[in-house]
Amino acid sequence: MEIDPAQPLASAPAPAWLRVERDPRGVLTLTLQQAQRFNVLSQAMLQALQAALDQAEQDPGLRVLVLAAEGAAFCAGHDLKAMAAPGLTQSDHLALFQQCTRFMESLQRLPVPVVARVQGLATAAGCQLVAQCDLAVASTEARFATSGIRYGLFCATPAVPLSRNVPAKKALEMLFTGDFIDAQEALAQGLVNRVAPPQELDAVLATLVDSLLAKPKAALAWGKALFYRQREAGAATAYQLAAQTMAVNMMDPAAQEGALAFLQKRAPVWPHSGERSGDGVSGEFTS
Amino acid sequence: MEIDPAQPLASAPAPAWLRVERDPRGVLTLTLQQAQRFNVLSQAMLQALQAALDQAEQDPGLRVLVLAAEGAAFCAGHDLKAMAAPGLTQSDHLALFQQCTRFMESLQRLPVPVVARVQGLATAAGCQLVAQCDLAVASTEARFATSGIRYGLFCATPAVPLSRNVPAKKALEMLFTGDFIDAQEALAQGLVNRVAPPQELDAVLATLVDSLLAKPKAALAWGKALFYRQREAGAATAYQLAAQTMAVNMMDPAAQEGALAFLQKRAPVWPHSGERSGDGVSGEFTS
Amino acid sequence: MEIDPAQPLASAPAPAWLRVERDPRGVLTLTLQQAQRFNVLSQAMLQALQAALDQAEQDPGLRVLVLAAEGAAFCAGHDLKAMAAPGLTQSDHLALFQQCTRFMESLQRLPVPVVARVQGLATAAGCQLVAQCDLAVASTEARFATSGIRYGLFCATPAVPLSRNVPAKKALEMLFTGDFIDAQEALAQGLVNRVAPPQELDAVLATLVDSLLAKPKAALAWGKALFYRQREAGAATAYQLAAQTMAVNMMDPAAQEGALAFLQKRAPVWPHSGERSGDGVSGEFTS
Repeated sequence: MEIDPAQPLASAPAPAWLRVERDPRGVLTLTLQQAQRFNVLSQAMLQALQAALDQAEQDPGLRVLVLAAEGAAFCAGHDLKAMAAPGLTQSDHLALFQQCTRFMESLQRLPVPVVARVQGLATAAGCQLVAQCDLAVASTEARFATSGIRYGLFCATPAVPLSRNVPAKKALEMLFTGDFIDAQEALAQGLVNRVAPPQELDAVLATLVDSLLAKPKAALAWGKALFYRQREAGAATAYQLAAQTMAVNMMDPAAQEGALAFLQKRAPVWPHSGERSGDGVSGEFTS
Repeated sequence: MEIDPAQPLASAPAPAWLRVERDPRGVLTLTLQQAQRFNVLSQAMLQALQAALDQAEQDPGLRVLVLAAEGAAFCAGHDLKAMAAPGLTQSDHLALFQQCTRFMESLQRLPVPVVARVQGLATAAGCQLVAQCDLAVASTEARFATSGIRYGLFCATPAVPLSRNVPAKKALEMLFTGDFIDAQEALAQGLVNRVAPPQELDAVLATLVDSLLAKPKAALAWGKALFYRQREAGAATAYQLAAQTMAVNMMDPAAQEGALAFLQKRAPVWPHSGERSGDGVSGEFTS
Repeated sequence: MEIDPAQPLASAPAPAWLRVERDPRGVLTLTLQQAQRFNVLSQAMLQALQAALDQAEQDPGLRVLVLAAEGAAFCAGHDLKAMAAPGLTQSDHLALFQQCTRFMESLQRLPVPVVARVQGLATAAGCQLVAQCDLAVASTEARFATSGIRYGLFCATPAVPLSRNVPAKKALEMLFTGDFIDAQEALAQGLVNRVAPPQELDAVLATLVDSLLAKPKAALAWGKALFYRQREAGAATAYQLAAQTMAVNMMDPAAQEGALAFLQKRAPVWPHSGERSGDGVSGEFTS
């Protein structure tokens, strides 16, 4: 686990089955590594994930969050074994789903892009996790299902981000049947952004992450918040919010530098980072 | 017409051009068989359909509704001949469209999956009917159009479910031009779930229906209601509703049995039905 | 520039870099021809476009609006050179984005179909322009990007129509990375309706425009307004609005003629236009 010197360790270390890696560039990778349990979102796993996100929100150098996993499954959803324990009440179950919802909402509130790296099976709340992330890359071996209905439990919370990613009839089909779709189908339906053979998955992820790192942090943060907020508003309100966001963004030193670099046909050098943009901005359209 | 002994016949029998079949498993099939009139949604046809749905809502053994048709057309929409009768007022027309809307909304309110079996042309309110159903299977010979505009009548009510199934520019193109799309295009655009050659359409439908029958009724009912309700809410409200739905669902004996079966690596035996799930649940992900 | 005799010229002629053509059929074509500046939406360009739209709203014979451009770019978005001028305040920037928003909203309020003809690069607010139009045809050489983020400015206002045209993860990917998609990808993602080689682009556009001209003006106007309004409402309200729209539409002489023509198996002759519908309405489904 690489640590940014500026970033103190949390008081409670992450448990062994959640690997937390933070590289010097600001990429935080959370890797579920409870492969023998198919990386289920047990209460303990959710607590560990939430603790990692709460800490990440305090990390001034955070730039990108990657959610990854080891083993045959990316994540098999909730821990049915714990949920089937005798004596649990409706309130107990509600508390669990609310805990999971809090984690999902934290991903969207985080002011950096969140990318899922899906190497295997993503079922039920595991499929929800992919849908909830801003972006997702998947191995050709990944498969996706909202499979709770096969065990008598409709994937209601997974339906929330699934129906905001995937066309309505396909979402209902997945929810009603619990059937798997493969990675190519997930790509065609809008559930993931990229599909690659297993041995190329990390390269595809790295290219995407590098592109995100080449952008100024503040603009990505304003943009992500605006995206989800405007999407729930009527178009008129959405446009008002968006115009305000852009006006604020234009006063940011990075945007001033970006416009100048564009006019001078050179790559921008973002303030506060000192890093040179690596994605070939060349002022191609300058008049 | 097979009748479930538990299910009394409606006092008024369905007219000859609407075949009502209810099999012992709970599959209700409504077949439009006024082929020579292209199965138009005349007032009488809408009344017959509404009566069948009202009766279906009272059927405790109902599990799946299939909407089917005979002839070259699945459904050619409203009955232009009746609508062109002299002397009709705006109120008369409004009453007709509201009657049709009531039927469409009943399909969505019905607590079981509704599947369209589209064997031919689906135009105007016939295309709306496909869009309004939860799921749809189509023959390779099916074609779809919101064709009212070609006769001077914009397909406004069809636009409601069409724009909730199909991307915006494609929906507008269909509505503005009235042009047909074929079954493959309908699949690509999200208007149907499956396409099959005519001779294989019933097998494809049967596979889908069998999958739905293998799921517990209550979970499907909660899930369907939640799906449409959460889709219209903001994400935060959607998640609250969904978490509540899942907590309620978890207290259902079927969900308890499903979780237990999962842990014991066997197929669930749903309470109240005594039927064994046929879709190979095997506890594949049990820790 | 062909002028409909019924349509007075605006008092202020359009500047040289905005060509305004209005053909006798009611097709208004606005062509950005500031190719050396990649057709940026400078304040002056926005003013000229707004003036043309304000005039178009007063044109009783207007039937279709086409937005076109000359050169390598369809439109490269905002004028970064002007925006990078020293001393501009947040209010200055807000005023510019609001001016642009007013133009975009005018396109949607215009009671005729608006079609983008995209021959080249469409970036940032240029990509927004494509998304905002009702329909779009694109050359195989067209490319699309919400590229502001590469210069430190998140494309917030472009996100508004982009996220209402394109699936969520693809929209976020474009907004976060600024990467280009080509015309085929734009078609697959719902950003455009048709793709054609450059030499066939005008023929494809003409076919689409002819189809729109063959429909009655009032029905298209009611339909367009209804489409955008119902899309933001819940389904129940959407259906109420749509039923009212159809009832009003049915009282229109064109709809009465359309229904009659349908029953008589002939092409409709729209009142007020005297033109014969050219798209082969043949009463194919008459009983």
